[in-house]
Amino acid sequence: MNREVIGSRLRAARASLKKNNLDCLVATRPANVSYLTGFTGDDSWVLLTERNAYLLTDSRYVEQAHGECHCCRIIQRTGTLAAEVARLSKKLKSVQSIAVERCTSLADFASLRKKTNTKVRQAPDIVEPLRVIKHNSEITAIKRAADIANLALRQAFRSTRIGITENELAGRADFEARRLGARNSFETIVAFGANASRPHHRPGRKKLKKNDAVLIDFGLRHKSYCCDLTRCFTVGRCGSLYEKAYRTVQEAQRAAIKTIRDGVEIQEVDSAARAIISRYGLPVYGHGTGHGLGLEVHEEPIISKERKGKLRAGMVLTIEPGVYIPGKLGVRIEDDVLVTRTGCRILTTGCNEAGPPLRLPAR
Amino acid sequence: MNREVIGSRLRAARASLKKNNLDCLVATRPANVSYLTGFTGDDSWVLLTERNAYLLTDSRYVEQAHGECHCCRIIQRTGTLAAEVARLSKKLKSVQSIAVERCTSLADFASLRKKTNTKVRQAPDIVEPLRVIKHNSEITAIKRAADIANLALRQAFRSTRIGITENELAGRADFEARRLGARNSFETIVAFGANASRPHHRPGRKKLKKNDAVLIDFGLRHKSYCCDLTRCFTVGRCGSLYEKAYRTVQEAQRAAIKTIRDGVEIQEVDSAARAIISRYGLPVYGHGTGHGLGLEVHEEPIISKERKGKLRAGMVLTIEPGVYIPGKLGVRIEDDVLVTRTGCRILTTGCNEAGPPLRLPAR
Repeated sequence: MNREVIGSRLRAARASLKKNNLDCLVATRPANVSYLTGFTGDDSWVLLTERNAYLLTDSRYVEQAHGECHCCRIIQRTGTLAAEVARLSKKLKSVQSIAVERCTSLADFASLRKKTNTKVRQAPDIVEPLRVIKHNSEITAIKRAADIANLALRQAFRSTRIGITENELAGRADFEARRLGARNSFETIVAFGANASRPHHRPGRKKLKKNDAVLIDFGLRHKSYCCDLTRCFTVGRCGSLYEKAYRTVQEAQRAAIKTIRDGVEIQEVDSAARAIISRYGLPVYGHGTGHGLGLEVHEEPIISKERKGKLRAGMVLTIEPGVYIPGKLGVRIEDDVLVTRTGCRILTTGCNEAGPPLRLPAR
Repeated sequence: MNREVIGSRLRAARASLKKNNLDCLVATRPANVSYLTGFTGDDSWVLLTERNAYLLTDSRYVEQAHGECHCCRIIQRTGTLAAEVARLSKKLKSVQSIAVERCTSLADFASLRKKTNTKVRQAPDIVEPLRVIKHNSEITAIKRAADIANLALRQAFRSTRIGITENELAGRADFEARRLGARNSFETIVAFGANASRPHHRPGRKKLKKNDAVLIDFGLRHKSYCCDLTRCFTVGRCGSLYEKAYRTVQEAQRAAIKTIRDGVEIQEVDSAARAIISRYGLPVYGHGTGHGLGLEVHEEPIISKERKGKLRAGMVLTIEPGVYIPGKLGVRIEDDVLVTRTGCRILTTGCNEAGPPLRLPAR
């Protein structure tokens, strides 16, 4: 992200600090650190005051930080992050109290309290609400990640043969993505046959058989931004139950996507998908219908039955209903969409966005 | 892990609970959850009492949990983890207070406190101290991960040609590992030439040139257990400064390994490596000399200047000194060792454990 984008994020974060009567925020969540500075390494915190932003990092990342960061001072710590916050906040006269993000561990919180005389407390969400609405450059990065994922999947499918293991297919998709300059945003899920009934199945040594169905849940990062998509295809014939499940999930996904626009209730999106699956007498999935995408692969808004609130233009989210029948099958179709004023734009283009499941010849 | 191993872990954890006057521990750290149950999924906690262990998970993981877990009851939650802990602890008469692990977030802690009338507090480390000393089956898993990593690296090196990008080489190593049935324990680091001066460089599009040096930091998981190793090699000639740096790091690593045995001070191991690098007038690395390995790729004991304490037989750790000269070069050599009563056993066998850096022909 360029200096201008980072600058406007810092201004927005400071406005929120002021509104909450805080003079200092310690951002400890890696995605928030990245959002406020452009830094992409680990084990680093940001201390944000009315006037300055400080990236507290260590020797492993100093060179990288100087290359990546805008609008902040880079401080190489030698002790713990908590000790560095204590040291720095003591030096800064404007800091009367320290507010740390809610994702901070009890251990870090206790350690910071022990090391400083300044008042330490838990901050309300300052950065997360800013991250929910995406800037054009963020949407472009997510779209690019999705395009690379699509390409990588096509390449991987091309080399899919009877006898390949789940592990190998996952490895091929990951490798193609790497060649295209992206990296995984989570561990690729590949499930053959009945393994797909476990929504978070971990690929193993199971070999692809004729007439097997395949589920692949695949996500990449491009310039730190995540995409997340799931595709199902079959090798040979898959049977009528699978066909029914697939078409139902497809219809459920379309119904959910159709509801999306600025101002719609999140629960309405969720229930649109579930209603279709119920209507066909298939088991309704236990997971959410989707989640926000950005610097993290799971972020706000979560699309679920319980979630109150409305979608707003500029949000990017997944829509991923599924049907799971243990011992038999699993189908999930997942695409990434940008909420707009009047509807939405699908960012994932794909392998099987319409029609029956993609059927590869049994080779 | 089999029922017997899990059973003895639970007994040890309960003994520690009793010693600390606790009647209920909530384990929230994924590696601790895995250690106490055998479960390898995410987003799940363990509630451990004197009599029972409960895995609190959700619909995505229920089938997997039934296949993986021993000695615990599997509870499918519908609300948040904190809500499920509150609900369950209310039902259990033996639970008078709830102790949650220190890695728990402030947000989860606050949410649990809000949802229950039972006293909630921060637990001392109960599970981490148990994890430090490895069981034979854990050592076997780490050794197997290291063997697979070695094999995968050999395969990847074989296909290394002038013009390959950092990304591609990382992707090849990862792919070979996948084919061998393992998965990454962290994102593979591949750095060409001067990029290696950033200890945590992220691979990019830089192409391998003749007379470049290559650093690869590579870790895999086998049966959830991590290995972690770093190898450096050159393609063609690398120059006398690189040779000097390489030999110095090698000597530093050997010096550190030589000090390792049950009962040695951790600081002694750390300073043995740093002393050699100082002696040759090269810049001393800013990171630790090593770290423990197990269900996490970074765990106790951390081998650093500041760390007090002694090594004990059964610990598994990395030894990874380095020399970094920004704009010029980076060398790190990392192996995994098991501490024994009288010395140590190196678990990584390797590509270049002795002699000058492995030199690949410039193809």
